[in-house]
Amino acid sequence: MFRNAKREAGKEGQSRKGKMKLEVYADRMSQPSRAVIIFCKVNGIDYTELKVDISKREHLTPEFAEINPMKQLPAIVDGKFKLFESHSILIYLACAFPGVADHWYPADLFKRSKIHSVLYWHHSNLRRAADTYVTNTTILPTLGHPSNQQAAAEAEKLLFSSLSKIESFWLKGDGPFLLGGNQPSIADLSLVCELMQLEVLDEKDRDRFFGPYKKVQQWIKHTRNATSPHFDNVHIILMKVKEKLTNKPLMEANHGGARDIEKRWRSRM
Amino acid sequence: MFRNAKREAGKEGQSRKGKMKLEVYADRMSQPSRAVIIFCKVNGIDYTELKVDISKREHLTPEFAEINPMKQLPAIVDGKFKLFESHSILIYLACAFPGVADHWYPADLFKRSKIHSVLYWHHSNLRRAADTYVTNTTILPTLGHPSNQQAAAEAEKLLFSSLSKIESFWLKGDGPFLLGGNQPSIADLSLVCELMQLEVLDEKDRDRFFGPYKKVQQWIKHTRNATSPHFDNVHIILMKVKEKLTNKPLMEANHGGARDIEKRWRSRM
Repeated sequence: MFRNAKREAGKEGQSRKGKMKLEVYADRMSQPSRAVIIFCKVNGIDYTELKVDISKREHLTPEFAEINPMKQLPAIVDGKFKLFESHSILIYLACAFPGVADHWYPADLFKRSKIHSVLYWHHSNLRRAADTYVTNTTILPTLGHPSNQQAAAEAEKLLFSSLSKIESFWLKGDGPFLLGGNQPSIADLSLVCELMQLEVLDEKDRDRFFGPYKKVQQWIKHTRNATSPHFDNVHIILMKVKEKLTNKPLMEANHGGARDIEKRWRSRM
Repeated sequence: MFRNAKREAGKEGQSRKGKMKLEVYADRMSQPSRAVIIFCKVNGIDYTELKVDISKREHLTPEFAEINPMKQLPAIVDGKFKLFESHSILIYLACAFPGVADHWYPADLFKRSKIHSVLYWHHSNLRRAADTYVTNTTILPTLGHPSNQQAAAEAEKLLFSSLSKIESFWLKGDGPFLLGGNQPSIADLSLVCELMQLEVLDEKDRDRFFGPYKKVQQWIKHTRNATSPHFDNVHIILMKVKEKLTNKPLMEANHGGARDIEKRWRSRM
């Protein structure tokens, strides 16, 4: 099914002898999908992007379960090797493709271990907070569904705490990136892509979160610049959602559009 | 403060020339702390265990914030290098100590990537489910506090789903360990230590969870045997809590004991 969907190959791809082209199964509505796609594009990895349309529930089909039995995006197939979970994919790509610059996932054990530390921390903090908050304050109310206020309040607290930790600890070094780096790592890309989903919040609410954190604001810009123009290109779909939410409340929009976005958001991973 | 607490060094320690002895900051009441301690013991890593007593809120002190600004356990200091998040610690130890057998964290990129996949999956599934369920069905009611029934119900669903995925997917290979391994990896150790906290549940409830999953039951036994006698020794504190919960309900126990356990559980990470 999704095999017939839009395919997009890297233009300046680096290929490996005797290897079939890497397949990336993704929907750009999912933030970890976007991180993997941006990573491939920035590093000139020769890949085929296979859209698994969440709004059409393609990720729940038996066909996709052959790729990822957890039915989540993104997933990759590299020859006979299948892998899911975006952080493990990013690490794999950085190691498997010799053209990827060291700063993305340094060979040095100490630097690499710190990046692991950020990535695991991210799972229990920023990822959990941002997702729960956006769902309960923006998506569900916009769609006219009841939201869990307690969950939103807890997520808000965790989101502030996560942003504060990024500002005061992960960004405390000399460089503009996490852990004091002068160039981004896979951790910068993953965390910034996560924060990008806050773009769909009401502007005042977004300012309330980001306002106190100047370093975080700069870091997002630096990550965006370091991965330009791919960062913006891959986020186009999110910006379209933001536009709809801002200018054209979904409840007042045509039903087809609202249903489409509802499906996308509800199935998001 | 915790520097004067109980110190326990590995007996058959492997040391590295010119390196100070590894310091492990832990409280055996925390399941990731137990995983790291068992790993050190099984692999004969020469370390000093520094107890950071959660019940005394030692993890929240400025002194411990110097070790881990996230104020969570476990954390390590290896010479000048500080690290937290148990999965990143386990990976670091497996790479930094040459005596650690390859099966714990294989050098092979494909095997290693699959282990990363399990570990990241674990964070958003089993870890979240087990923790939320135990807290809301056992700890809070035992202490006479109101619990969140909705959270417990969602956690129960995620816990069954996680166990089912372990049974049908992660354990589907020929070997007795995750990913078809014949020997355990750091993923086996981390996930089994997580499941061990279900020991404090009511027996019928525990049977309800584990009953349908025969492979999971066997896998826990295999992991325990492969890390014997350290596995049982490090879990003694959890078994004491289980005993108290089973034979002597906390609300009827002396207040000191109940308060002590409440503090421990409430501060658990």
